[in-house]
Amino acid sequence: MNREHAGKRLKTIEGHVRGIQRMVEDGAYCIDVIRQIQATQAALNKVSQMVLEEHMHSCVITAVRGEDAEERERVLAEIAEVYQAAMKV
Amino acid sequence: MNREHAGKRLKTIEGHVRGIQRMVEDGAYCIDVIRQIQATQAALNKVSQMVLEEHMHSCVITAVRGEDAEERERVLAEIAEVYQAAMKV
Amino acid sequence: MNREHAGKRLKTIEGHVRGIQRMVEDGAYCIDVIRQIQATQAALNKVSQMVLEEHMHSCVITAVRGEDAEERERVLAEIAEVYQAAMKV
Amino acid sequence: MNREHAGKRLKTIEGHVRGIQRMVEDGAYCIDVIRQIQATQAALNKVSQMVLEEHMHSCVITAVRGEDAEERERVLAEIAEVYQAAMKV
Repeated sequence: MNREHAGKRLKTIEGHVRGIQRMVEDGAYCIDVIRQIQATQAALNKVSQMVLEEHMHSCVITAVRGEDAEERERVLAEIAEVYQAAMKV
Repeated sequence: MNREHAGKRLKTIEGHVRGIQRMVEDGAYCIDVIRQIQATQAALNKVSQMVLEEHMHSCVITAVRGEDAEERERVLAEIAEVYQAAMKV
Repeated sequence: MNREHAGKRLKTIEGHVRGIQRMVEDGAYCIDVIRQIQATQAALNKVSQMVLEEHMHSCVITAVRGEDAEERERVLAEIAEVYQAAMKV
Repeated sequence: MNREHAGKRLKTIEGHVRGIQRMVEDGAYCIDVIRQIQATQAALNKVSQMVLEEHMHSCVITAVRGEDAEERERVLAEIAEVYQAAMKV
């Protein structure tokens, strides 16, 4: 299942963040620390995309097919909102 | 209308890009050039978001409500695709 | 020379932005418009990086080797500033 | 000290990632999960910038003032490299 898969990836990402903490404490070379942070960001991007895909195939389909125009509007506006935010992180 | 609005913004962005060319030719300070490029990127982000919003309210609604499961799948996959790409530019 | 090269790329990018305007006016498919915007942003990223490289090899070297501590501080702070901004556009 | 400060922030980020795992397991609303991921990425951006600043004020200054042209070239190329990568994550 998608959520289980996302959960496992987040477990791995948690380990990466702990690894970066150790690098910082142990005086690792700055550029190596930055590269590890960037790799972690890429891994978070992937989880973010997985969650969005699940959302599109569940809530978005339900809301778009439903009768509640306000709910539909809210759900579509949320997609546009996280899309815009995605371009800024 | 949304497309007209997006067209006007792109016209302005075209002017910005021409302005950056002049800055580069005239030997402007590098950091000022980079700041102008970043401002142009932010303006393009805004247009990208406007186009996505229009798309959500037209094609996505039509496809999700339609009977063609393959078409619906294609449209939802495209949103996930541009979302992922948005995190990389 | 680097600036000439950057100028040529910006000329091409200007053409891309004009092409996106036409797509928008001609009613092109939204996702295709978004993909073109993302390609333009990737091209701007490349120019931004070229300008930063030139900057590092000229102004940054001069400032870091110079006697003016305030000027050096300013130049280093600018790099950190555009780096942070780069993560947000 | 900067490294200690970065270490503390990474500790907090580790906690955020664990929190996102719980959200995913507990069936939290997808958009809320995505917003938390985006907040975590913004926090990582901040650490990345702090580490770069430290690097600029130590290794970069040392390398630029040093006699080793190859080492200087390497250090400047690394800045350009992480700058470019920053635009893609």
